[in-house]
Amino acid sequence: MKIALYQGPGRLNDIQACFVHLGEQAAKAKAQGADLLLLPEMYLSGYNIGPEAAQRQAITAERLAPAQEAAKSLGIALAFGYPEKVGGKVANAAVLIGPDGGVLLNYRKTHLFGDLDRGMFKERGMDFPLAELNGTKIGLLICYDIEFPEPARCLALAGADIILVPTAQMEPYEQVARHVIPARAYENQVYVAYANHSGAENGLGYIGLSSICGPSGAVLTMAGTGEEMLFAETHIEHHAAVRRADPLLRDRRPELYGLLADKH
Amino acid sequence: MKIALYQGPGRLNDIQACFVHLGEQAAKAKAQGADLLLLPEMYLSGYNIGPEAAQRQAITAERLAPAQEAAKSLGIALAFGYPEKVGGKVANAAVLIGPDGGVLLNYRKTHLFGDLDRGMFKERGMDFPLAELNGTKIGLLICYDIEFPEPARCLALAGADIILVPTAQMEPYEQVARHVIPARAYENQVYVAYANHSGAENGLGYIGLSSICGPSGAVLTMAGTGEEMLFAETHIEHHAAVRRADPLLRDRRPELYGLLADKH
Repeated sequence: MKIALYQGPGRLNDIQACFVHLGEQAAKAKAQGADLLLLPEMYLSGYNIGPEAAQRQAITAERLAPAQEAAKSLGIALAFGYPEKVGGKVANAAVLIGPDGGVLLNYRKTHLFGDLDRGMFKERGMDFPLAELNGTKIGLLICYDIEFPEPARCLALAGADIILVPTAQMEPYEQVARHVIPARAYENQVYVAYANHSGAENGLGYIGLSSICGPSGAVLTMAGTGEEMLFAETHIEHHAAVRRADPLLRDRRPELYGLLADKH
Repeated sequence: MKIALYQGPGRLNDIQACFVHLGEQAAKAKAQGADLLLLPEMYLSGYNIGPEAAQRQAITAERLAPAQEAAKSLGIALAFGYPEKVGGKVANAAVLIGPDGGVLLNYRKTHLFGDLDRGMFKERGMDFPLAELNGTKIGLLICYDIEFPEPARCLALAGADIILVPTAQMEPYEQVARHVIPARAYENQVYVAYANHSGAENGLGYIGLSSICGPSGAVLTMAGTGEEMLFAETHIEHHAAVRRADPLLRDRRPELYGLLADKH
């Protein structure tokens, strides 16, 4: 499977313009042979927009129809972040739409980041769902979620082959893009695609450095700090070979890990 | 606290020569103002020595007296790996000796690596103990243990400030030294010191690249591929400031992590 990843600036407060931009990027990715295009966190609205704008722009998953039509007409899977309307609240969500236009997965960020997230998002996720696409199991996490080892581990233990991570990663957290992303790929023996914003957005400076890492922790491709589209291929045979050679998941000792699930 | 880290080739099958070498390195570290010296996995015997030599050289913790005397006479803490005799079996162990010569911590590797470890070590650890030194809580892990996120996480949740990791890390696992070590420091907001062998040992090529990382994931110092002594300071105020600024450990959601402790 060929994954494309779009890194670019947020398009604030204009969901309709974002749907148009999404269609253009999807066509560009498809023209390069991509099967799936991943875009950043809160791609449809911008991330650093504040509680009022988040509330005003939030949409239910049913209102993703323009993205579903783009996916179907091009025959490409799409994954991106958006503000999801859940009753009267807003969740920081990400969706995976299949190449037939169907919604395969809708994930709500489980780990909210500081006042920024908590101000905008009064709803948060309660699980780590998986979807299947072309025989490949795909999970979604959003930004801060991947800084914790547990969510990616839960996905890997549930059978994930690929973890897609829309993000809005700002200074000074470069260690996450540089080290935590390849470490998550290595320790879980999964592909990890990490799609960041670039540029500044209402005073937040995003660091770019989006990447796609392979199941032995290799950085397959990494962006600079500006607008960019990256590509990498996932190989089911390589994935299986990595897991045969190094049984990292089978060598775990869950009987010693009780503290990790301890709710104190 | 000033940490010194010794990276160097294994001294095969000569524990007495290793005790002499240990005293020399401890004196060198102390002369540079170090409070603690960390050395590699199976430092006292060499790592890739095979089951018979491991059995023959294994000693009980009581036979560490020469190291305890060196620690006491110099007033420096010492941590290193050795083959521990446990009844008729051998464990891949690491010890932390205080500057008064007392054994503060004896840890047995919990995650055995492939046929190499399983051939030599029929005994393995069942917990992740902590010790206190100058008001700082210190845990030990050994090599493969740190590739799993869970052991370091258990130590961090139990209050560890510093995780010391004697290792014998070989090609082609450079991702561990380059990315997993700073990621463990970042995600757990702890200091991690990772002391590797260098050179070749019975056909295994060690990669060096020992490092000391800080609680915001910064690589404070990193070795090349040869024999080397590294130094870095830990700062309790900096550590507290990192944890105040980013409440990574408090933002965990253990109610969602049940799968991690699931013994299937």
